[in-house]
Amino acid sequence: MTRFECDYTEGAHPLILEALACTNAEQTPGYGTDEYCEAARSKIKAACAAPAADVHFLVGGTQTNLTVISAALRPYQGVVSAVSGHINGHETGAVEACGYKVLPLPSADGTITAEQVAALCEAHRNDASREHSVQPAMVYVSFPTENGTLYSKAALERLSAVCRENDLLLFADGARLGYGLASPVNDVTLADLARLCDVFYVGGTKVGALFGEAVVITNSALKKDFRYLIKQKGGMLAKGRLLGIQFDVLFTEKLYFSIAERAVSLALRVRRAFAEKGVPFLYDSYTNQQFPILTAAQIEALGKDYAFSIWKPLENGGTAVRFCTSWATTEDAVNRLIADIAKL
Amino acid sequence: MTRFECDYTEGAHPLILEALACTNAEQTPGYGTDEYCEAARSKIKAACAAPAADVHFLVGGTQTNLTVISAALRPYQGVVSAVSGHINGHETGAVEACGYKVLPLPSADGTITAEQVAALCEAHRNDASREHSVQPAMVYVSFPTENGTLYSKAALERLSAVCRENDLLLFADGARLGYGLASPVNDVTLADLARLCDVFYVGGTKVGALFGEAVVITNSALKKDFRYLIKQKGGMLAKGRLLGIQFDVLFTEKLYFSIAERAVSLALRVRRAFAEKGVPFLYDSYTNQQFPILTAAQIEALGKDYAFSIWKPLENGGTAVRFCTSWATTEDAVNRLIADIAKL
Amino acid sequence: MTRFECDYTEGAHPLILEALACTNAEQTPGYGTDEYCEAARSKIKAACAAPAADVHFLVGGTQTNLTVISAALRPYQGVVSAVSGHINGHETGAVEACGYKVLPLPSADGTITAEQVAALCEAHRNDASREHSVQPAMVYVSFPTENGTLYSKAALERLSAVCRENDLLLFADGARLGYGLASPVNDVTLADLARLCDVFYVGGTKVGALFGEAVVITNSALKKDFRYLIKQKGGMLAKGRLLGIQFDVLFTEKLYFSIAERAVSLALRVRRAFAEKGVPFLYDSYTNQQFPILTAAQIEALGKDYAFSIWKPLENGGTAVRFCTSWATTEDAVNRLIADIAKL
Amino acid sequence: MTRFECDYTEGAHPLILEALACTNAEQTPGYGTDEYCEAARSKIKAACAAPAADVHFLVGGTQTNLTVISAALRPYQGVVSAVSGHINGHETGAVEACGYKVLPLPSADGTITAEQVAALCEAHRNDASREHSVQPAMVYVSFPTENGTLYSKAALERLSAVCRENDLLLFADGARLGYGLASPVNDVTLADLARLCDVFYVGGTKVGALFGEAVVITNSALKKDFRYLIKQKGGMLAKGRLLGIQFDVLFTEKLYFSIAERAVSLALRVRRAFAEKGVPFLYDSYTNQQFPILTAAQIEALGKDYAFSIWKPLENGGTAVRFCTSWATTEDAVNRLIADIAKL
Repeated sequence: MTRFECDYTEGAHPLILEALACTNAEQTPGYGTDEYCEAARSKIKAACAAPAADVHFLVGGTQTNLTVISAALRPYQGVVSAVSGHINGHETGAVEACGYKVLPLPSADGTITAEQVAALCEAHRNDASREHSVQPAMVYVSFPTENGTLYSKAALERLSAVCRENDLLLFADGARLGYGLASPVNDVTLADLARLCDVFYVGGTKVGALFGEAVVITNSALKKDFRYLIKQKGGMLAKGRLLGIQFDVLFTEKLYFSIAERAVSLALRVRRAFAEKGVPFLYDSYTNQQFPILTAAQIEALGKDYAFSIWKPLENGGTAVRFCTSWATTEDAVNRLIADIAKL
Repeated sequence: MTRFECDYTEGAHPLILEALACTNAEQTPGYGTDEYCEAARSKIKAACAAPAADVHFLVGGTQTNLTVISAALRPYQGVVSAVSGHINGHETGAVEACGYKVLPLPSADGTITAEQVAALCEAHRNDASREHSVQPAMVYVSFPTENGTLYSKAALERLSAVCRENDLLLFADGARLGYGLASPVNDVTLADLARLCDVFYVGGTKVGALFGEAVVITNSALKKDFRYLIKQKGGMLAKGRLLGIQFDVLFTEKLYFSIAERAVSLALRVRRAFAEKGVPFLYDSYTNQQFPILTAAQIEALGKDYAFSIWKPLENGGTAVRFCTSWATTEDAVNRLIADIAKL
Repeated sequence: MTRFECDYTEGAHPLILEALACTNAEQTPGYGTDEYCEAARSKIKAACAAPAADVHFLVGGTQTNLTVISAALRPYQGVVSAVSGHINGHETGAVEACGYKVLPLPSADGTITAEQVAALCEAHRNDASREHSVQPAMVYVSFPTENGTLYSKAALERLSAVCRENDLLLFADGARLGYGLASPVNDVTLADLARLCDVFYVGGTKVGALFGEAVVITNSALKKDFRYLIKQKGGMLAKGRLLGIQFDVLFTEKLYFSIAERAVSLALRVRRAFAEKGVPFLYDSYTNQQFPILTAAQIEALGKDYAFSIWKPLENGGTAVRFCTSWATTEDAVNRLIADIAKL
Repeated sequence: MTRFECDYTEGAHPLILEALACTNAEQTPGYGTDEYCEAARSKIKAACAAPAADVHFLVGGTQTNLTVISAALRPYQGVVSAVSGHINGHETGAVEACGYKVLPLPSADGTITAEQVAALCEAHRNDASREHSVQPAMVYVSFPTENGTLYSKAALERLSAVCRENDLLLFADGARLGYGLASPVNDVTLADLARLCDVFYVGGTKVGALFGEAVVITNSALKKDFRYLIKQKGGMLAKGRLLGIQFDVLFTEKLYFSIAERAVSLALRVRRAFAEKGVPFLYDSYTNQQFPILTAAQIEALGKDYAFSIWKPLENGGTAVRFCTSWATTEDAVNRLIADIAKL
């Protein structure tokens, strides 16, 4: 069984394991105050062209989302998200458990628009009974989205502008950030994200690390107390250097970008293989996740040798599934899969 | 200016004020342990044909909703509601502030169906990644809904059945319960609610009392700790007898029902007056709230002498507004309004 | 049985009931936006010599405490309180349920000192591991305390100064404020409280009203969003005018002060009666609560005709009990009690 | 500079790094459902003689504490802890942020007694106003305590008995469990903990792992929903196998116990060295943490070459400090330290 069901089926890039082994016996202070974390922070800030940013390392995505949102909101405020946003449907109510409402916006492909955000603000604020409404204070976007789609730089510019006009913070969940930046259809850079968002994160768990997300805070209002919240929410790793070491490796010689690019190119080969068989797609993804719509027979055939996710049964009888590549996917595995797709 | 914008513009029914005055100098123990509360509990249980129910008195609706929901849910569970449910949009995130997600279902008229609930359970529970989903544990309905519409007994029976099949509690918000029960199109009784719901409340604030909601708990799993939660959430009135005295009066000689019936019949006169002018309605309400769709000119004309709520601007140019009657509405006021509607 | 066990055994001062009856049929907008609330706000601001203050009306003390504290704190911050403070032991964890830690300070009589607060700040802030500590952000005091004791103006000045030096808000719970201000040993005024605290409240429930607490916010950082929090926490009364009318009466012709003064003088008569019998006291209270230490025989004797609270069994065999007077206590009741004390 | 300031200054035991490297390219399903986790669970259950237990793996201690406590308590309930318990003072209010009060008990050495727990239950439950008190529902103990002290088997038996009599859950924080079990003065076994507690955890972060805590749940009432809470609180590691692999190694050939024993014996050598110089100790610890009370001159002298924690300035002028050993401490480092202590 070769696994394509998600992008976290293997361990870490060999260079990361090597760095962990090399540094294993060293003694460092805890909680992210060590030199490896400091080095990684510098490299990330440089990559983002954001020398004044604060960079914090957390272990996983849900933890990162709930910590950032708790740092940003007052109790009666909410965070705007696509209805399909990870925080709205896939984190067991983590944001609500911290006391905050997720304000969902409809979305066909996982993205939301500046117009939707403006209209929601209008509805929640200009009402005579606004004190009875949760007040939007942050917009959460995923880059790439949970559906593999991307915001263009122009779309992000518009979102950012509408947020600033409406006194909303813009937060980008970058759990798969590398695979978005590496997409051939992408025109957004790390520096764009740092410029347009108030806070975002660079996902490591799915892009080469054993685990780890690097939060980049550019809005100074969010900086002051962030470490208190990391600790309170259970996200402060005692041996914080494990995160520093990993991100230091990932941001050395652009490893983060090169492994992501390779994964995306493998995913696009899979995409082409399906397309050549006339298989339609649920979402128009040019990142590491592909969502072909298969027949029951096709699912059965591919299911013999490959693990993939059942995404959504469709009304017309087909079923959307998900195939993911990652930094760890082998060419051999993709070649075999493509050959088997051709036989469908 | 005559006010029809909501159903809480006056004080209380004169019999309630009289009872408060008569008992004012008496000394009673606090926190709802007095004889007036006990008497009111007995009368409400009798009216519900639910001798084993627990009855608790709280001051207002938002407080009641958040207390009941906190008593019912475990941290990772959520409460299902119509998207237009009061808890979802009009309580400033009170439920989320207690840590729980509201799981919204689309609704055209304010009601939700057993089929919708079953499908939501299926989606949240039968998924391979169900541990990443908030688990539905309670269904919240408003009777009547925020739009003045009602569940038929048959619809409530189906909802109740689907809840029991799926291990969900059914909770009915009865902030305007009297006006629902008194509607000529209603076939649900207090005893039906007690039989079909696990918990519901009899709204006093909008139906004759100065304030107060009487929570009726029929599911014994919810009974044990309820008073602790009332206290913690700030809902335990020191002079609890004020609630007991009011509900005792309302449930003596069916006052609650007779004043509600009168208010509904006045609302239906207003409805007919609009209908006779060819004014369309946003919702098909036969309770104390009416939602005519007016032109800008009509709004201006009526706005000179009457206060009413602007409900929702519609895409076709008209605006839905809300007129409410209550136990306190005078015939004279309604006669004047009807005459002015006729002149539109 | 004559009740002295607490100060909320009767209804409201007759002038309040009269005002509620007179205004009962009037129509006003909801949620505290009516003219009665506005009038009461003006009178309270004048009495506090705080024209720029914001005044909000809530129903009860626990609700007021949790709302004020939620408005003031960030998630990782805590509120400092005497271990005997109402929020620490008598509100079923209401503050913690909103997510905040109460940081308790030892106290023999219910008061805390500026030195204690300064030392706690030092311990929580100057530590290498301060990010692992809840950060004190507010000091909560009760005036009078739960034990009937008072802060002198000098003590309050010192507390206020230490709070400002340490960037802490000072919050005074005035559930029994009238009985503190009216004490013959008190030298604090409403204007002092407004000047020295960032927020405090004037208790109505125990001092003449059916219910109601008037929150006075003088620190502008706390003003902005307060109504959103009142609504979210379930404290926004639909018929908000009920609170306005009551406080308007209480602050007309100094009713609040005259009824409190009378209650305190009755309490001090009871105090003298016990003292003349050689009965010791647990706390040195010159307000409306008295805490004599009785023998089992004395408790039995007085228990035949009077209700009072068992406060605390003491190690030497005696038991501290509590007798309260209030605005509603009759001279006749006190005369009888005093006669019966004399017979002990 | 040789670091003795805490027990998490190095990476992981070499066998763990080796296992991570060996398995790195394997593909496994996520979220702890892989075979390594399953194998580790089996070994831990066997070591605990608790075949029916549930075992879950989390990343760190604060996260584990807040997740276990959230799984156990209803909103109005609290967790009893020594005032010095980690949850009470060193986790930035993590438990309160989940809505629960920590009920602190005084403690001189970090332990609490069955008698204290019984008295607290009595005070919170048998009161006429118990509904105004947080209800104790769980007792939290640390084994060893934050001060390096231990509960004897007899003391744990008494605590467990009082918990069961009072319907309280007993939860042992085992962040340093290995160092407690390996102490020469200890008579408690893993099987005892499994038998006497409802839930406890085996700390990996400080005892050989890169990170990780293994929660052992023996009370079936706690088992049902635990994974939902892990996910919601941000503790579900995507590559869950990283935890399984580490605990699998630690529980193979008793590695966990042998490395802990070695660390404790090194700590006791340090202890003897201080004792031989007549240095007193703040706590009577026979585990891996030692708390000598040093003079300013001694602190300065040792501070040149060694990092250690400043624990607490004492009133008599001395300062308690903390030296920790761990699985990674070298004999060489200890030999040097002992030689330098001898020179004091």
